Amino acid sequence: MSYQRKNIKNMMGYASGEQPTDPNTLKLNTNENPYPPSERVTELIRQFDPAALRRYPPPNAVKFRQLAAKLHGVDTSNIIATRGGDELLRLVITTFVEPGESIGVTNPTYSLYPVLAKIQDCPLVEIELSETWALPESFPAEMNKAGVKLTLLVNPHAPSGVLMPIDAVSRLASKLDSILLLDEAYIDFVDHEYQSANLINKHDNLIILRTLSKGYSLAGLRFGYGIAPQELIEPMLTKTKDSYNLDLLSQEIAAVAIEDQSSAKVTWELVVKERQRLQAALETLGMPSPPSQTNFLLATSPVDAEQVYRRLRDRQILVRYFASPNLEDKLRISVGTSAENDRLLLAIREILDNY
Amino acid sequence: MSYQRKNIKNMMGYASGEQPTDPNTLKLNTNENPYPPSERVTELIRQFDPAALRRYPPPNAVKFRQLAAKLHGVDTSNIIATRGGDELLRLVITTFVEPGESIGVTNPTYSLYPVLAKIQDCPLVEIELSETWALPESFPAEMNKAGVKLTLLVNPHAPSGVLMPIDAVSRLASKLDSILLLDEAYIDFVDHEYQSANLINKHDNLIILRTLSKGYSLAGLRFGYGIAPQELIEPMLTKTKDSYNLDLLSQEIAAVAIEDQSSAKVTWELVVKERQRLQAALETLGMPSPPSQTNFLLATSPVDAEQVYRRLRDRQILVRYFASPNLEDKLRISVGTSAENDRLLLAIREILDNY
Repeated sequence: MSYQRKNIKNMMGYASGEQPTDPNTLKLNTNENPYPPSERVTELIRQFDPAALRRYPPPNAVKFRQLAAKLHGVDTSNIIATRGGDELLRLVITTFVEPGESIGVTNPTYSLYPVLAKIQDCPLVEIELSETWALPESFPAEMNKAGVKLTLLVNPHAPSGVLMPIDAVSRLASKLDSILLLDEAYIDFVDHEYQSANLINKHDNLIILRTLSKGYSLAGLRFGYGIAPQELIEPMLTKTKDSYNLDLLSQEIAAVAIEDQSSAKVTWELVVKERQRLQAALETLGMPSPPSQTNFLLATSPVDAEQVYRRLRDRQILVRYFASPNLEDKLRISVGTSAENDRLLLAIREILDNY
Repeated sequence: MSYQRKNIKNMMGYASGEQPTDPNTLKLNTNENPYPPSERVTELIRQFDPAALRRYPPPNAVKFRQLAAKLHGVDTSNIIATRGGDELLRLVITTFVEPGESIGVTNPTYSLYPVLAKIQDCPLVEIELSETWALPESFPAEMNKAGVKLTLLVNPHAPSGVLMPIDAVSRLASKLDSILLLDEAYIDFVDHEYQSANLINKHDNLIILRTLSKGYSLAGLRFGYGIAPQELIEPMLTKTKDSYNLDLLSQEIAAVAIEDQSSAKVTWELVVKERQRLQAALETLGMPSPPSQTNFLLATSPVDAEQVYRRLRDRQILVRYFASPNLEDKLRISVGTSAENDRLLLAIREILDNY
């Protein structure tokens, strides 16, 4: 016999991208920032008193939340700090969606969303994006008609990298009966002004997800946060999150990292510049991609994409290949440093020349 | 209108013990280890390369799990590493208990259990302990009759500190139809040989919870683990836990801490010695407590316990008072260092003399 709940028994877990340990491997498969975190993170760790770990940490990460609130021009009560964006996604589902109620997503989308829906035993309502990765006009009406309780939207979109303009996000939030979770994991790499936090004053159904994984070069830290009206933050903060969800050291590291905006911005600008160069160079090689506002490109391969993925892998270069119908001719490639992108471009040229 | 699920809207969250920042406050309220963590933790932090935080951490904490498996004489597949014991408790409920199914506990018990049951919308079946804090003979039959799917048992018991012998635990696991979660948060302070890990080979329904919070002086790290048959570990490890639940730095700290058994044991022995002294001294003052095998004592007050709690608080000494019917004449007091316990004893003597 199995003790598992039926929905758990019948589901598949999330498949993480490969994490090779060989330093010669070029890792362009999980959208990590190619530059190191702030020097202040190093200083913090060097000066940290390990004896402080003896005691329980602040349960609600108040110091980090104050800094994030200041950055976004909102109140501390509008912020929840979480163990990566993943924890926020789980908390939103746990707090606001009954088992059996529907969760709405685009197709394609971030592959973790369907896994989280299955854990809560929630059916998924999926709506196909257009060929230019845009939401169909009918999206909110279809979500409402299906009785969706939570809509999960990643913006800029993954895996295409395409950004939905802020006024379109606001219109969508107005039209949806459900909570709208706006996953801004990649927002730091947008190449022009984009401010969404003030939308929470206009929409009582909006939760914005942010993470330190990409923009702050801290994927290994597991630290993210949510920005939302207090009515949505409060039950997650005081009821459904694990009572001490964030360890002391990561709370302190996250605080200095988010305070040091200027050094994070240096990496964003470098990534944007390299993204533009890489996109143009790939297009010249016959691998065009939609206009990305993230730290990755979704390139269409002129030859079998899975073969290109494998041959890159033979050369110790990892990119992401998705074996799903609308992505099977494409590769998702994280933007690396200048030298890394050169190595990738050279390898792709060789593979295509010898195909 | 509220977007919250009905069960979330109607519940109260977990109340953490106070965490004062004034260094003059004597903190004997949350059962932290009074001694600092292993020197190897300090070395690890000093030598840690912050640039490594740029990448995602190992998703399944394999290095820590191998060390824990070796320590307990089980296989790595019998171990899951979690963000404190709290995460394991949540995962066990998420994975094995349907909303609406019952969870069984003793009364009293660890006050987090009812909160976690409410989040999953599970009714609680509570069975009173005897006057000596022992399980009634009828406990397993009553749990089975009530159709309980998961029994949560903290051993040594909180808040009494009383240990259930290992053969009684084994008999209980045999008799229960449900999964038995054996919460051994305080097991490191048992003053004689106690080995439970091998019971997982005998009972397909047993999950043992361990934490580094108390025994390894790392409450601030948020690191725990589960020991169980592979059939119970696997769905939590591959399906229901957050995909990267543990940051890189805490995985590395936890690994060196659990490897350094000898320095942890030094603190266990000091705590046991002080517990014995404190218990005898409190008894002399008219505050007896049951035979504790933990790092705290549940002392019965000869005068109004809440008043003693308040007067200790006025002297900047924090202990825990529970305003529930079977605990209202008692105080839960964490065992401190020798000097800390002396300060506590002096204050109690003064309070009682002047009552």
